[in-house]
Amino acid sequence: MKGFASDNNSGVHPDVMESVIKANKEHAVGYGGDELTAKAEQLFQKTFGPGARVFFVYNGTGANVIALQAMANPFNAVIAAQTAHINVDECGAPEKHTGCKMLTVDTPDGKLKPELIQQHLHGFGFEHHSQPGVVSITQVTEMGTLYSLEELKKIADFVHSRGLYLHMDGARISNAAAALGCSFKEMTTDVGVDVLSFGGTKNGLMFGEAVVFLNPDLGANAKYIRKQTTQLHSKMRFIAAQFVTFLSDDLWYRNAHHANKMAALLAEKLEPVKRIKITQKVEANGVFAILPPHIIEPLQESYFFYMWDESRHEVRWMTSFDTTEEEINSFVEAIKRLV
Amino acid sequence: MKGFASDNNSGVHPDVMESVIKANKEHAVGYGGDELTAKAEQLFQKTFGPGARVFFVYNGTGANVIALQAMANPFNAVIAAQTAHINVDECGAPEKHTGCKMLTVDTPDGKLKPELIQQHLHGFGFEHHSQPGVVSITQVTEMGTLYSLEELKKIADFVHSRGLYLHMDGARISNAAAALGCSFKEMTTDVGVDVLSFGGTKNGLMFGEAVVFLNPDLGANAKYIRKQTTQLHSKMRFIAAQFVTFLSDDLWYRNAHHANKMAALLAEKLEPVKRIKITQKVEANGVFAILPPHIIEPLQESYFFYMWDESRHEVRWMTSFDTTEEEINSFVEAIKRLV
Amino acid sequence: MKGFASDNNSGVHPDVMESVIKANKEHAVGYGGDELTAKAEQLFQKTFGPGARVFFVYNGTGANVIALQAMANPFNAVIAAQTAHINVDECGAPEKHTGCKMLTVDTPDGKLKPELIQQHLHGFGFEHHSQPGVVSITQVTEMGTLYSLEELKKIADFVHSRGLYLHMDGARISNAAAALGCSFKEMTTDVGVDVLSFGGTKNGLMFGEAVVFLNPDLGANAKYIRKQTTQLHSKMRFIAAQFVTFLSDDLWYRNAHHANKMAALLAEKLEPVKRIKITQKVEANGVFAILPPHIIEPLQESYFFYMWDESRHEVRWMTSFDTTEEEINSFVEAIKRLV
Amino acid sequence: MKGFASDNNSGVHPDVMESVIKANKEHAVGYGGDELTAKAEQLFQKTFGPGARVFFVYNGTGANVIALQAMANPFNAVIAAQTAHINVDECGAPEKHTGCKMLTVDTPDGKLKPELIQQHLHGFGFEHHSQPGVVSITQVTEMGTLYSLEELKKIADFVHSRGLYLHMDGARISNAAAALGCSFKEMTTDVGVDVLSFGGTKNGLMFGEAVVFLNPDLGANAKYIRKQTTQLHSKMRFIAAQFVTFLSDDLWYRNAHHANKMAALLAEKLEPVKRIKITQKVEANGVFAILPPHIIEPLQESYFFYMWDESRHEVRWMTSFDTTEEEINSFVEAIKRLV
Repeated sequence: MKGFASDNNSGVHPDVMESVIKANKEHAVGYGGDELTAKAEQLFQKTFGPGARVFFVYNGTGANVIALQAMANPFNAVIAAQTAHINVDECGAPEKHTGCKMLTVDTPDGKLKPELIQQHLHGFGFEHHSQPGVVSITQVTEMGTLYSLEELKKIADFVHSRGLYLHMDGARISNAAAALGCSFKEMTTDVGVDVLSFGGTKNGLMFGEAVVFLNPDLGANAKYIRKQTTQLHSKMRFIAAQFVTFLSDDLWYRNAHHANKMAALLAEKLEPVKRIKITQKVEANGVFAILPPHIIEPLQESYFFYMWDESRHEVRWMTSFDTTEEEINSFVEAIKRLV
Repeated sequence: MKGFASDNNSGVHPDVMESVIKANKEHAVGYGGDELTAKAEQLFQKTFGPGARVFFVYNGTGANVIALQAMANPFNAVIAAQTAHINVDECGAPEKHTGCKMLTVDTPDGKLKPELIQQHLHGFGFEHHSQPGVVSITQVTEMGTLYSLEELKKIADFVHSRGLYLHMDGARISNAAAALGCSFKEMTTDVGVDVLSFGGTKNGLMFGEAVVFLNPDLGANAKYIRKQTTQLHSKMRFIAAQFVTFLSDDLWYRNAHHANKMAALLAEKLEPVKRIKITQKVEANGVFAILPPHIIEPLQESYFFYMWDESRHEVRWMTSFDTTEEEINSFVEAIKRLV
Repeated sequence: MKGFASDNNSGVHPDVMESVIKANKEHAVGYGGDELTAKAEQLFQKTFGPGARVFFVYNGTGANVIALQAMANPFNAVIAAQTAHINVDECGAPEKHTGCKMLTVDTPDGKLKPELIQQHLHGFGFEHHSQPGVVSITQVTEMGTLYSLEELKKIADFVHSRGLYLHMDGARISNAAAALGCSFKEMTTDVGVDVLSFGGTKNGLMFGEAVVFLNPDLGANAKYIRKQTTQLHSKMRFIAAQFVTFLSDDLWYRNAHHANKMAALLAEKLEPVKRIKITQKVEANGVFAILPPHIIEPLQESYFFYMWDESRHEVRWMTSFDTTEEEINSFVEAIKRLV
Repeated sequence: MKGFASDNNSGVHPDVMESVIKANKEHAVGYGGDELTAKAEQLFQKTFGPGARVFFVYNGTGANVIALQAMANPFNAVIAAQTAHINVDECGAPEKHTGCKMLTVDTPDGKLKPELIQQHLHGFGFEHHSQPGVVSITQVTEMGTLYSLEELKKIADFVHSRGLYLHMDGARISNAAAALGCSFKEMTTDVGVDVLSFGGTKNGLMFGEAVVFLNPDLGANAKYIRKQTTQLHSKMRFIAAQFVTFLSDDLWYRNAHHANKMAALLAEKLEPVKRIKITQKVEANGVFAILPPHIIEPLQESYFFYMWDESRHEVRWMTSFDTTEEEINSFVEAIKRLV
């Protein structure tokens, strides 16, 4: 049953699968000492600037906790939106791996702002207080919303002016870049992101994400942290191959752009439907909506998706690189029938 | 350059690759809620007994630290051979993830014995002393040697009689079962192993290992530990598919048996060569040998392999499921020429 | 300069000092194997019931993190008021020592209620979510307010009905018992507290707190946790002696009752003063008040105390076992003069 | 029963107790903001040089794990003698608090040497290997032996030449300085120790040790680490007062010198006794001896002391600042009678 539960319910993009198959030749040095990994690393440096250092990992939680370990001491606090993946979807991995306290911010749309961050910026030098050390933002946010380049720059400047580092959880960074019509570099290196968790799996890879150190002060120990965090793959070429394809011929863009377009289409078609209330700006590949309670269960019988907020009958629909226009149409028809 | 550096330098077995390609259809529920994962889990239960509970993970270090977290409190000690992977090849991941002390045992061949374990079994109830909690053995050992079923049973009984748990690092468990001519169950469940790290990557998989709880008291929290340890894959079907193939039609056996045969062939052909001294029993797919110092570097120019003990010119050669008889022959010829 | 900054700015009660001097005779077995420790342990069992097990430690943060380690796994979450000491005053020690996530609750008065706890009781069995495992309340709260016995019972029953444990941070538990006119046991064992951090230092001791396990399932590993947490004192008799005196002749009550009375007196005398707004119920030994901004600094020149909430000119005044009526009177006069 | 079990079985030196009593006046700012703490800090700077920064803590395990956290990342290894307190007497606290691996060295006398350390200095830059980061030595060693100034200098130079830091566990540093006839500074700052755990409790204090940062690069975060490690005392003046007395009028020296003299006396008197074999050089306040098995238990009926190595009937006797010549004489007589 194809549905709208998550962009990670989709499979592997055919080009990516092809690259994996092609990588399966002869022997290769393990743990990233192979040629494909070297090529992928070069592509990342071309993408993010010559100072960028990339470390390939298995998954997003791994990328995030490696990034945070490289950016913070255990007595630091990490500031994030209450809805952030690192706060609500990683079973406490950030706390366990870093020893840090999470300081969360309530937001209407998953987006931090300097004035929201400010509430946690006190107690500096006071040893009873976890020292604010890192601000983590998610782009695209977990609410499907986007930071503009101006907003990112403003946050980065603010964060740095207060002596903190800026982490970006980019699990859906391709969707963000496609939506903003900018390059990865413009959205990260250029605005001042220090460390980026670069997502692949939600945009057509089989497995594999990357930690990208844009601030050259921070990556020196990353290879040890990656290994100790259990995120070093032996047959690295099979991650690297995927990323080479991902970053070549704009595959990342084509996949993400398509997914975004499908979400926009879904939102557009539902707009005229009374009793369906879209609750967040549809800026990437997610649609959040409040439904009439009686239609949710019947709809879930044919389409797999998750409740977002049970108490107000709010659901989350994610589109993917392989979502088709027909699927959107059928889904909208099903909703209309039920309403 | 194909070589003898490690069995993880090999690629993916064609049947395994085929299973991955076939799994790439439509959408599937993430994080293991899919049908392929259910099928793989059933195969593991069929393999290890109905009480077994399996959790798929990314890699061996991940499997080991999840197993140890489920078996020990931070004030416990984990006893292992000095040469154990968990002691020397995981950048301190066991200590970091569990908080436990490692107590190591010097061995000539990588194998623990009750009388060797005994030296660390003291200080029970004494709060200044890390409380011995787990014994971890590796089968096949890191020295290429094997525990017999009798030896395993003796260790398990001893360990349990002293109130400890027994962990088996089975990164090369297929090679062990193939060499002993026994089933996985006879080597684990039946002798009394409590938790097993079950290896796949070194025997033809692209990525994926498994933690198998044979002692039903220990697995209750494993799913949370796996997630918090960053080892839960979203597109789980791509790990599950590989394991389904691995455990079907004896693929695991054919791969491992072949690798073992190639190591035996290498050892057999080198036996008559004077000045080559094989230092460990060749019982699985590894050959350890002391070489005349002057031939090592020239040999490495054509064949990739690692020094094991620089000080005595000892090298380690690993064979793989795709090592060919011709490669062994050429390699032996090259050695003979250099000697 | 004597002031109202904290009850730990006071010194040691003369009777307690006397007990320390008396304990300084001959040699004694270290780490709690001495007679005074045995006597103190018996007094705790007499106080809390025969099932209680007590472990003496150095300080409150130590007591709290030992209690939490004994009650929770790293994948659990600990629920507490936002203002809880474990959340805002321990530099992230709970996260670092336990690996757990802290889930906080905004309250007007530092007090949890079942309906406030409820918001965090979801995601059970969902491995992406830190599993709620412990609720921690502080009695007296950090806002100087008190839970009644009925409120405690209601929380304990609720917490247990949801499968969680209840921790009480009793840094000022003597003030609470004195104020409620009940025994320690009525406020803890009898209502269903599982583990208690029992405070001494804020009520006249030199150093020393205790972790009291009331739920017999939870204390089995406490001695190892205490040692590994660096909280085991070698010359234990000097902590034990203080607690023997503390629990004898109602010293704990006399000290706490006096401190409470002084806070009540301060509040009573300030009530008629216009422009001084007392912001929390004065139920123990703390007074929270909003002052006219211009008087704060001049007042601090003669009396040491802390700002509580800079933004609204709210201060915190703590009284102590050695606060005198004259000091209260002079302080009130000084305030009146400045207003 | 006075005995020879440990120097921490002794009580508090009368001068130290006097200082505690005197410190008990009025109120004082908590957590080290008081005048006595300032005075004690100045004395430490006078003692160790103007660049030294001192942090007072509760106990030796606390001091050690704070020092190690400040010196190492979790992916580092800490190298120490197998007999080191941090390795065998702290219930795994170093591993739990730092995440580091312990690499141990077998020694005949508890003393490290460059050539013994060397065996662990490999794998630099190899991410599978815990990176050697700190060497920890104990002065006086746990075997009662001493490093000379030359030996210390040689180790420090070696350690620094390899890019590691040197930690000294100085639980009995006074005994060492008294025995070597040198100043604390000559034995630490001047030879190149980076961080020192400075002991007080074993030489006459009630409670209290200190972490002294001699390498100015390392102490910047120590105050946060101390708090998060649960080692920050609120009524700090009562630790500070003890150290002020300890470092004044050479009290530390008088206590330690006396204890050393008593150990020397014991050794001297036992030398002629056949069947008593003293197994370690008696260089400070400990005597290790192999006894005829049949006399051990009867002797323990009158004198409390510990077995060191059950298997060879080796015992450890510690003398203290309050051991008397008469006690030594009676003890020797008792031994002679039993032999």
